[in-house]
Amino acid sequence: MTKAISLVISEAALETVPIDLTNHPSVTNYARKLGKKPSEILLDRSYHHAAMLKYKLEFAWRRGRPDLVHFALIEALSTPLFLENLLDVYVSTINNQVVYIGKNLRIPKSYPRFEGLMIDLFKNNLIRDDKNNATLLKLQNNISLEYLINNIIKPSKVIGLSRMGVQNTPEKIISMHISESCYQCAFIIGGFPRGHFTENTKRLFDFFYSIGNYSLESHVVIARIIYECEKALSV
Amino acid sequence: MTKAISLVISEAALETVPIDLTNHPSVTNYARKLGKKPSEILLDRSYHHAAMLKYKLEFAWRRGRPDLVHFALIEALSTPLFLENLLDVYVSTINNQVVYIGKNLRIPKSYPRFEGLMIDLFKNNLIRDDKNNATLLKLQNNISLEYLINNIIKPSKVIGLSRMGVQNTPEKIISMHISESCYQCAFIIGGFPRGHFTENTKRLFDFFYSIGNYSLESHVVIARIIYECEKALSV
Repeated sequence: MTKAISLVISEAALETVPIDLTNHPSVTNYARKLGKKPSEILLDRSYHHAAMLKYKLEFAWRRGRPDLVHFALIEALSTPLFLENLLDVYVSTINNQVVYIGKNLRIPKSYPRFEGLMIDLFKNNLIRDDKNNATLLKLQNNISLEYLINNIIKPSKVIGLSRMGVQNTPEKIISMHISESCYQCAFIIGGFPRGHFTENTKRLFDFFYSIGNYSLESHVVIARIIYECEKALSV
Repeated sequence: MTKAISLVISEAALETVPIDLTNHPSVTNYARKLGKKPSEILLDRSYHHAAMLKYKLEFAWRRGRPDLVHFALIEALSTPLFLENLLDVYVSTINNQVVYIGKNLRIPKSYPRFEGLMIDLFKNNLIRDDKNNATLLKLQNNISLEYLINNIIKPSKVIGLSRMGVQNTPEKIISMHISESCYQCAFIIGGFPRGHFTENTKRLFDFFYSIGNYSLESHVVIARIIYECEKALSV
């Protein structure tokens, strides 16, 4: 069982370009600009919208937003909770791939550098620190969110956060579920731009909350939940 | 006098490439890639490091980080406080330029789109909404932080936040300075990657706080301060 609080950015809109789309000019042009093969680059709605439309990509409105995953990671990995090794962070993608975030990862703030890192990760499944060989990032295929939670993280409670949950404040949610003697919670936050968690995701939740009247961006929810966790744990 | 809380991202590492550097290959190559003139593009350490070194750019370690400004803006503009029109946001750059953020701006999350928007702003000084002609972004030259605070924002209190301030928690800082009857504060947060506020900036502060033992990223400080302001104002 995990010794830390876990954060799972789930159903995340992070993947390489699906095979059907690799011949579309919007993909081949962008791949050429990056000096990569079309199948190696990240699906990105900003550039591949036409290809996603033309090939009627399934669930297209929830896919191709690596920038959202970048923001969510920057938010989580910049906090004292992560820097103190009290937060484990995972990205569970829409294609049942899992990205494990190493303890000492400093995620690049520059988007092109982040993009390069993710392309490398999807190609080689592993990124090591040049200096000490520690694992910075690891990718595993065919790991469902359910498997990740039940067999890898094994938290004492699973708490989903989205607009559709029961209204409450971050302060009250954390005071109910996190204390210095008990903090093995997994928080599940959406890594997609629109729509709601799937039923498969929701049935994994022990608790399901919404933290505002607004439809808040994932990175805002992450910032507030982590900050309240730090207060509860006196970090 | 402002009716809202103000946030000033100050000494911000946002500028176009200085004239001395415009002939360097790292600049001309990148400009060609974007289809822009070298003098129009943003100075970016990720790409122009060699040029910054070669021409011994003054204060180089504090310049050329538009990505940090992007994160700080995304953080502030995603909050209910901004969405409810209770937060005015300004960027005061290292070159005494000021960017005014319009009430309804939805800043692009995609970095290349943000970069394009800023290039357009530095060229034309104004970005309007195509639909209703409202001002989304405005740039003014030769406006010092002092002038911005004393003649434009005119807050009742100026509160600086950085590692060098007096240690306190966001909760206590906000409870001392923000209430539903009194919230015309300007918060000043650094928009540079390293080092500290200049003396010229510090002498504008009525109060100067640090909110953690860690050297927190600006976007983390922004997230926490705005969240506590929302609690104090029941947003």
